[in-house]
Amino acid sequence: MGGGMLPKLTVQPIGLRIQTKMNETVLESLRRNGIVLQSICGGLGICGKCVIKVVRGKLSPPSEQELKLLSGKLSNGFRLACQAKILEDVEIEIPAEATIHFFKIAVEGLELPILVDPAVKEVIVEVKKPTLSDLKSDYSRVLDALKVESYVAPRLTVLKKLPSVLRESRWGVRVIYHKDLGILDVLPADGVKRIYGLAVDIGTTKLAAYLINLKTGETEAVKSMLNPQISFGEDVISRITYASDYERTIQLQKAVVGGINQLIEELCRDVNISPQDIYEVVAVGNTAMHHIFLGIPPKTLGLAPFTPVVQNSINVKASEIGLNINESGNLFLLPVVAGFIGADAIADALATRIYESNKPSVVIDIGTNTEIILNNGKDLYACSCASGPAFEGARIKHGMRAGLGAIETIYIDSDIVKYKVIGGVKPMGICGSGIVDALASLLDAGLLDRNGRFNVLKSPNLFINSGKDYEFVVADSKESGTGNAITITQRDVREIQLAKSAIATGLTLLMRDAGVQVEELSTIYLAGSFGSYISPRSAVRIGLLPNVDLSRIRTVGNTAGIGAKMCLVSYEERIKAEDLAKRIKFIEFYIKPDFSKIFLENLNFPIKV
Amino acid sequence: MGGGMLPKLTVQPIGLRIQTKMNETVLESLRRNGIVLQSICGGLGICGKCVIKVVRGKLSPPSEQELKLLSGKLSNGFRLACQAKILEDVEIEIPAEATIHFFKIAVEGLELPILVDPAVKEVIVEVKKPTLSDLKSDYSRVLDALKVESYVAPRLTVLKKLPSVLRESRWGVRVIYHKDLGILDVLPADGVKRIYGLAVDIGTTKLAAYLINLKTGETEAVKSMLNPQISFGEDVISRITYASDYERTIQLQKAVVGGINQLIEELCRDVNISPQDIYEVVAVGNTAMHHIFLGIPPKTLGLAPFTPVVQNSINVKASEIGLNINESGNLFLLPVVAGFIGADAIADALATRIYESNKPSVVIDIGTNTEIILNNGKDLYACSCASGPAFEGARIKHGMRAGLGAIETIYIDSDIVKYKVIGGVKPMGICGSGIVDALASLLDAGLLDRNGRFNVLKSPNLFINSGKDYEFVVADSKESGTGNAITITQRDVREIQLAKSAIATGLTLLMRDAGVQVEELSTIYLAGSFGSYISPRSAVRIGLLPNVDLSRIRTVGNTAGIGAKMCLVSYEERIKAEDLAKRIKFIEFYIKPDFSKIFLENLNFPIKV
Ligand code: FES
Ligand code: FES
Repeated sequence: MGGGMLPKLTVQPIGLRIQTKMNETVLESLRRNGIVLQSICGGLGICGKCVIKVVRGKLSPPSEQELKLLSGKLSNGFRLACQAKILEDVEIEIPAEATIHFFKIAVEGLELPILVDPAVKEVIVEVKKPTLSDLKSDYSRVLDALKVESYVAPRLTVLKKLPSVLRESRWGVRVIYHKDLGILDVLPADGVKRIYGLAVDIGTTKLAAYLINLKTGETEAVKSMLNPQISFGEDVISRITYASDYERTIQLQKAVVGGINQLIEELCRDVNISPQDIYEVVAVGNTAMHHIFLGIPPKTLGLAPFTPVVQNSINVKASEIGLNINESGNLFLLPVVAGFIGADAIADALATRIYESNKPSVVIDIGTNTEIILNNGKDLYACSCASGPAFEGARIKHGMRAGLGAIETIYIDSDIVKYKVIGGVKPMGICGSGIVDALASLLDAGLLDRNGRFNVLKSPNLFINSGKDYEFVVADSKESGTGNAITITQRDVREIQLAKSAIATGLTLLMRDAGVQVEELSTIYLAGSFGSYISPRSAVRIGLLPNVDLSRIRTVGNTAGIGAKMCLVSYEERIKAEDLAKRIKFIEFYIKPDFSKIFLENLNFPIKV
Repeated sequence: MGGGMLPKLTVQPIGLRIQTKMNETVLESLRRNGIVLQSICGGLGICGKCVIKVVRGKLSPPSEQELKLLSGKLSNGFRLACQAKILEDVEIEIPAEATIHFFKIAVEGLELPILVDPAVKEVIVEVKKPTLSDLKSDYSRVLDALKVESYVAPRLTVLKKLPSVLRESRWGVRVIYHKDLGILDVLPADGVKRIYGLAVDIGTTKLAAYLINLKTGETEAVKSMLNPQISFGEDVISRITYASDYERTIQLQKAVVGGINQLIEELCRDVNISPQDIYEVVAVGNTAMHHIFLGIPPKTLGLAPFTPVVQNSINVKASEIGLNINESGNLFLLPVVAGFIGADAIADALATRIYESNKPSVVIDIGTNTEIILNNGKDLYACSCASGPAFEGARIKHGMRAGLGAIETIYIDSDIVKYKVIGGVKPMGICGSGIVDALASLLDAGLLDRNGRFNVLKSPNLFINSGKDYEFVVADSKESGTGNAITITQRDVREIQLAKSAIATGLTLLMRDAGVQVEELSTIYLAGSFGSYISPRSAVRIGLLPNVDLSRIRTVGNTAGIGAKMCLVSYEERIKAEDLAKRIKFIEFYIKPDFSKIFLENLNFPIKV
């Protein structure tokens, strides 16, 4: 093989092809590509957990450790991934008997295979009994049985139960081990062997919780509810304002923790497990939700320059904030990037794998604050745009959330307005995607000009005059479920213009800073619930999105929840998250001298494309 | 300087002479000898904290860093200890302006200088304010200001108060930093600057607490009380028996924690500080006291092979076990060696520095269980002897603790018994040292034979016949404060024989295992309260101690308390403690085939020496 050519590694059963480095071990190659095999001994060739099977090609000759641990199995092609080095193109298989599962994350249009390798795992061990000539402590014995490389400090909750569990179970125990925190629990080896985790998406409006079996990586139940903090304020800013001191922060914290505990109770009942079987919660949320969840006053997020109190990912005893899971259970929070770029943005990046591509691409997670994460093929940039709640139906005369009775799509066909209502009932209002559709159709029909003024004279029968101003009628009072006509006002158009300009300006400036041209963008991922409903064509038509081929726009759903799940099921994703939080360059636009100029330009609608 | 000769380093103002290694830095040399200079940057030559002054001799030429940081000061002999290498004999001075204090530990006959370098320190820093172009989190800013080398996970208690403290104090803060745990607290820089620690000796019978100013290393107040656990059983075994399950262990834990909290309250009142000013508690005790203090059932300590549940030193949030100090305060427990060799034995070794000598020496810490730690000049050995409570006055007809009214010394002068009573009052009983004196005198006078039988015929007037047996009269009913004669019975002699044989047998077997002869023992340290009262001459006479020159026997007082103080005031001592726990070889005698034979031999008293 020539010096310049690097050998390729093909991994079955996922069919992944990996670019390797000459002479690196299979374990290293796999790890660099996000596939984490069990390797308890850390690659020393002692534990024998990293067994793989060679299907085609040759690896380095067996090491002493392999001869010792595999012996007969060697001739059947089995090798230790930590010992075998890559010398030429080779195809391997990760054997079914290895306790490794694949976990498929379904994102609309994406399907990411992830190896199930959670931070929390169970290990069943036979602990050596003490004898008169071996008087080590109970705790050291368990560490020895686990073959941990260096001493890990014990938790008091574990020490308290350890002596009786060891002796009652006759030294055969099931250890719940956390990669970063050591032993979380010790249980008799012959008991029920369940180990669950909970992924939580703490939205300003909604809490969503996914109960995941950590052995299989499968989501066994999902529940959601309104964030109980809503009674303290609808949006992030009002929550930050409310949580002006420590006591009020704790009030908000208790509300959200109480909500999650209720979801835990319901999820456990549905799947018939105990909250004691849940050993870890992974949570994701914007920076304000993140801080309040930890009981940290979010005051600094409401004052320029909007810095967070803590940024890195964080492990906290779940009991410390009152989460009702196992008493030794852990809470992991993904890192945040900045005051307005929260852990949800990191999750966006994780779920879309935008950071992996060497082609420019962007994720736009639309909400009251819209986060944009851009990869220019090399570096990652992010910004946050104060797009406001217009796309969620707020501040719009007949606006409503995308729920039963909301008009979600609208088109105008030769002066006749047609629409679709969620649930097929009589319309009650219009949701964000409906308004965007309406404006796109109005533009196409020449009923709305570039500056956002209705061209009433063109089809006067489509408008009514409310006295002060003209309104475009989507459904008249007879069709409507409310008894009143459902309209779009001149003011509503203005709100949408402000919202879409905020996002378009963010994207424009971000692309400028990153040196990316519109035509270079290989993919625009639309995340968040509004992003899932919106018609890409309409979004481009009103100038919310740049003018790209529609095939390049992909909606990806609730990436925050998906990112939390990924970090729960795969430890490797946490390392990526931490790395992303450091890599992403946060761009603050309000300080750019030409921000206002570009914002004004973007208020206008594009000329017909 | 010849290749074989190693340069010497003389350290002022303590006048310590250190054997160095050629080419090692002054910082390394000092550290190897237990002198820890401030070196925030870890010896990279960045922080400038490790300044020393050369008094005599030459060090390596100044490094680039030194030229940068010291510039003009170089010509005055100032150097950075982490940069300057030792090439020849040199004398240095640790400057007064360096924030290093010496802390003198007074042990009877010993005076150990220790550098005040506690695990918990305050650092006053100016934190950089965030700006629009520097949006790091509050927590990262504090870490930056502290110049910590790698990220340390935050405590939630700190994050909760951090944003308001930073802003209210205008970014000038006082950080309470723990070497192993990171930031414990953040306070305004202009407030009262107090930082205290508490060293606690948890004895089976007595609790002693020392309130120490961590800036000066000085003990500002001391208090002690009976261990409230006494109501659950007098000795260790009865406590272990009582704490048979988790609930009962917690009962005992609450008793001792309650006692310590009471001492904390009194100490704080005396010195006029708040429990909030105390940031660390360092505790020492035997293994059973250690486990119960943490709420770990001590059951395994009562069953062969008597293994502890945990052995290594341990850091626990003080609040987790209910200690009333600062809410972020830490509890550090010294490591234990084995089920019957507790943290108190490690403290014995620390306080006597027995581990440093290259001459054989031994510490004997006499109590209900007597721990012996032997250094054969190279390795450390320890054993525990079930010496029983006889030396504390228990199981002795007229025995009592060494307190008011106890006869503490006895001698017989031509058939007249003379004695001294503690407090100079009428005698109420005899304490351990009195009994040992009595037996030594009786042996000298020929009134007691080698086997422990009274030779009544020699001086019949010194004995009375209680009907069943003879008793030696120390004080008759007229002299006595109880109205009854105070005597030593034949049975009492037997109890002392059993106790002293247990200790002598332990020492004999330990010395045999370690290959040490009696005449090689350079020092015998007697520790513990009984060890402080006993007459070395009498102890040798009855065979409790081997026949060595009396000048080699030193009493060292409450080494457990001293060891706890040392670990509180000097982080380096914790490293030594951890190291000692691993180095000390625990020898279990009851399994030796000739144990009984030697034990029987040692029951006899020695022939006149
Ligand atoms: S990782 Fe343990 S043997 Fe390969
Ligand atoms: S240790 Fe920091 S300069 Fe020497």
